[in-house]
Amino acid sequence: MSTIPTHQILHGIGVSAGTAAGPAVLVVPAPGVDATEPPSTDAAADGQRVRDAMKAVSEALLAKAEHAPKTSKPILEATAQLARDRGLAKSVDKELKKGTGITKAVHNAVEEYAVMLTQIGGYMAERVTDLYDIRDRTICQLRGLPAPGVPDLQTPSILVAHDLAPAETATLSKDTVLGIITEAGGPTSHTAILAAQLDIPAVVQAKGAEVIVAGYRVALDGGVGEVIVSPTDAEVELLAERSRRRAAALAGSSGEGATRDGHKVALLANIGTADDARKAAGYDLEGSGLFRTEFLFLERDQAPTLAEQTATYTEVLKAFGDRRVVVRTLDAGADKPLAFADLGPEDNPALGRRGLRLSMVREDLLDTQLQALAAAYEATGRTADLRVMAPMVATLDEAKWFAEKVRPLGLPKVGIMVEIPSAAIMADKLLSVIDFVSIGTNDLSQYTLAADRMQGALAPLLSPWQPALLAMVKSTCLGGRATGKPVGVCGEAGGDPLLALVLVGLGVSSLSMAPSKVATVRAALRLHDYSTCQQMAAFAVDAPTAGDAKVAVETLVAPALRDLL
Amino acid sequence: MSTIPTHQILHGIGVSAGTAAGPAVLVVPAPGVDATEPPSTDAAADGQRVRDAMKAVSEALLAKAEHAPKTSKPILEATAQLARDRGLAKSVDKELKKGTGITKAVHNAVEEYAVMLTQIGGYMAERVTDLYDIRDRTICQLRGLPAPGVPDLQTPSILVAHDLAPAETATLSKDTVLGIITEAGGPTSHTAILAAQLDIPAVVQAKGAEVIVAGYRVALDGGVGEVIVSPTDAEVELLAERSRRRAAALAGSSGEGATRDGHKVALLANIGTADDARKAAGYDLEGSGLFRTEFLFLERDQAPTLAEQTATYTEVLKAFGDRRVVVRTLDAGADKPLAFADLGPEDNPALGRRGLRLSMVREDLLDTQLQALAAAYEATGRTADLRVMAPMVATLDEAKWFAEKVRPLGLPKVGIMVEIPSAAIMADKLLSVIDFVSIGTNDLSQYTLAADRMQGALAPLLSPWQPALLAMVKSTCLGGRATGKPVGVCGEAGGDPLLALVLVGLGVSSLSMAPSKVATVRAALRLHDYSTCQQMAAFAVDAPTAGDAKVAVETLVAPALRDLL
Repeated sequence: MSTIPTHQILHGIGVSAGTAAGPAVLVVPAPGVDATEPPSTDAAADGQRVRDAMKAVSEALLAKAEHAPKTSKPILEATAQLARDRGLAKSVDKELKKGTGITKAVHNAVEEYAVMLTQIGGYMAERVTDLYDIRDRTICQLRGLPAPGVPDLQTPSILVAHDLAPAETATLSKDTVLGIITEAGGPTSHTAILAAQLDIPAVVQAKGAEVIVAGYRVALDGGVGEVIVSPTDAEVELLAERSRRRAAALAGSSGEGATRDGHKVALLANIGTADDARKAAGYDLEGSGLFRTEFLFLERDQAPTLAEQTATYTEVLKAFGDRRVVVRTLDAGADKPLAFADLGPEDNPALGRRGLRLSMVREDLLDTQLQALAAAYEATGRTADLRVMAPMVATLDEAKWFAEKVRPLGLPKVGIMVEIPSAAIMADKLLSVIDFVSIGTNDLSQYTLAADRMQGALAPLLSPWQPALLAMVKSTCLGGRATGKPVGVCGEAGGDPLLALVLVGLGVSSLSMAPSKVATVRAALRLHDYSTCQQMAAFAVDAPTAGDAKVAVETLVAPALRDLL
Repeated sequence: MSTIPTHQILHGIGVSAGTAAGPAVLVVPAPGVDATEPPSTDAAADGQRVRDAMKAVSEALLAKAEHAPKTSKPILEATAQLARDRGLAKSVDKELKKGTGITKAVHNAVEEYAVMLTQIGGYMAERVTDLYDIRDRTICQLRGLPAPGVPDLQTPSILVAHDLAPAETATLSKDTVLGIITEAGGPTSHTAILAAQLDIPAVVQAKGAEVIVAGYRVALDGGVGEVIVSPTDAEVELLAERSRRRAAALAGSSGEGATRDGHKVALLANIGTADDARKAAGYDLEGSGLFRTEFLFLERDQAPTLAEQTATYTEVLKAFGDRRVVVRTLDAGADKPLAFADLGPEDNPALGRRGLRLSMVREDLLDTQLQALAAAYEATGRTADLRVMAPMVATLDEAKWFAEKVRPLGLPKVGIMVEIPSAAIMADKLLSVIDFVSIGTNDLSQYTLAADRMQGALAPLLSPWQPALLAMVKSTCLGGRATGKPVGVCGEAGGDPLLALVLVGLGVSSLSMAPSKVATVRAALRLHDYSTCQQMAAFAVDAPTAGDAKVAVETLVAPALRDLL
């Protein structure tokens, strides 16, 4: 047995506020091929063993799918089906007949298959991740090891991983996962975004997390980014106390967002599906500031039809009644390629033909989407405060092109995302042809700092406190002021209570975030005057570094805000 | 025989000024496998045929290497050696024994080899391009077709291609290539940069260039981006006249760069090797504003030694005497991976661990380079106006880190490249810890517009006339003014006479470019007062689009400048 790990405090980046303590569950990487296995001498018997293992894997995945949320169900089902692929089993047979050891045979057969899928490209190439998942699960099954990835949790636990793949996070639930700690990942990684959406406290980039031992107690504070290995009871109590104070501070917060002196700030939810919309509408908030429509388009062989889209958009609008709904048109390409609209591989997909650039090549996709939105708007009696915006707009010509598409359809308001530096710089010009803008801080910081959002090693560059990013927000807000048009923020930064104050001080008039974050942000706003927010904004933009910006802002913070972090 | 193509004018993007007319030579893509070939029935005889073909390919490449410039010689020699690889020939034998047709056998064997090299990764993976070159040449040899790529030119000709690969451009010479026309490629593509360096008139993105027929006359104007298919004699005469007027206008231009009213602008050369340095030093210019040191590091198994680097840097400093030499430290990663410093594959290498980010992980590489620079500076008697700068700096902390590395070594001046938007925005802060900055307009526009430089389809976004890019230059210059420190430009934009005026008007005090462009830029500056440049800058930055910016600036241009374009 392992000994209790030494008490120590680790520092990482807090990406989902809240505190938790509980037993650690380690998400271990796949063990791989058995290096000591003998060569296969009975290909028929070994082939049957592999088939049995793959069947067991398929069944386990189907069982998992049954309890999975709607969004991840089809992924798990498709993987289960792939595990029953006969061609794959036959490839394994071929390897076994050569005398290859049984787990090595699975490995080789999958590799061959993966090369093939990669060469086909597009949707098939996307399946390679699933294929590797099957490989790992089958090898574990054959070796009598527990399945890799996130285990089925028997008691509420703290997940500890090097990093979590999107597939691994798909089935997580607040009921069993008390907190998440990863050694890698950045503040805008999938893990971070998902944890915030599920309201699970999380710390990423927790250096030294490898000392955590499975089964032993660990605690974390996702607000300040602290992890305590083998915490004392007093420390756990302190965390719990912080958690209670937080709940108390939040209890008094309801209604419209506003600063202490009444400067209004609309607080909105980021959503991806009609289901999200219904859930978010149940929160005390003013609508959705970002409806990511790409969920409708991903993982499919062809685009959703006009009728299908109309139905979904109608559901979303209905869920919010007369509240605001800001719909972002299809943002595919880059890390979200579409099987039916693949413009070919790119060296740097994040700098490629994604977002509106794809829509300009595939006008048919955009036309259908806009028609569906117009139909849904009619169907719900034109009661919603519906706003439509395009992703990845860089120039005035693009903004014009999009506005001219949207306006003839009778959709009430048209805008764009500001996520490319040029759009932030040219905001006054762009706003002359549209009605509003919404800043996507994640992508905007990726381009402003020239650092890939998905590259954990570059996370410090991507801090939303970078003064250069805040200067971009300021430039956008100056454009809004010059034209008298509203500027919102729908990146993750809007959900951070401290940053929210800075953004409001810069001139942002709406913040869209994971619905679970709204209460904290509302409470933070109520604790500060607008002039304090403006002073914070001036301090932050003028700071020489991200660290200095945060420290400068903290000097102006109302003490009661501490309880909310 | 094909008929004379109809007279017509095509429009593209002029990337290397000057005019030319002559017979078209088409660079055709590789023909690939012979679909009609019979299966192999005599593997031994066919294997010998393949060996003979590969030997012929190897010899042809070696012959080509003999007349190639120093920089491309080793590439050609390495490819020639790969064509004699026995393992490859044996793989072909295996295919032939299965009865595969002869060209298909070459194709399959190479493919298998390529997969293997790709899996090894790093330097070996880089060899895949050479391997495909061998495949194409061997198949042509076997099919009795001329070698693919740029043919050996018998008479001075105009090259017409869909696009040119770096390897294809390696052996081009101004003696035989009168002009270059490509259908694809962008203003910052390899073709564009190389053509400008060689002073060969070139037009990229020439839509409709497929109507050009080999052997028939075609004319181009690389200044305005015009291509004339089957030009009339009058048109050819007009182009020649423009070319003569240009030569006349340039004849009077010599000495230090300055506006008509004496505002000084240092005119400098971009160089990559000691050979470049010697050539550039022969021009009438004030030194080098960008010495790209990565040529020393690429295509090698290990980093160049201290002694080797010292020798090269000494040669470069000697070539320029007491003139300015701005050395950029190693800018590897992204599209220039190093075998001995590979940090692993990245989804978006242009947003990854390149430039200074790599140096911060591999300090040893930077240390050796800086020591070699210090030694070379000593060896040449500290006479050069030596300045050292780091690529890909985003934050103040990074600039500080670099300055603290450089200063203790006694190197006189330390600076950074401004190629990331955050560096442009934070220029005043960054300049507080360093001595100068140099703007890399190509990368800066790539990040400001979030558009991959290498993506031909995004070329319009990457126009150096984008007001957002010029606003970034302005922000950098304001930082320079606030701190009293100089701001240079070393991107391709500095070599465009019209843009040069705008950059100077924004506050740029040095321009570095292909040496062949210096005379034109100097002449352009001499035709305009500094206040006119400032007015141009104001017009351009305030314009709503790139097109409007250029049109606005053109209204202020001295008529005599027309002759220079």
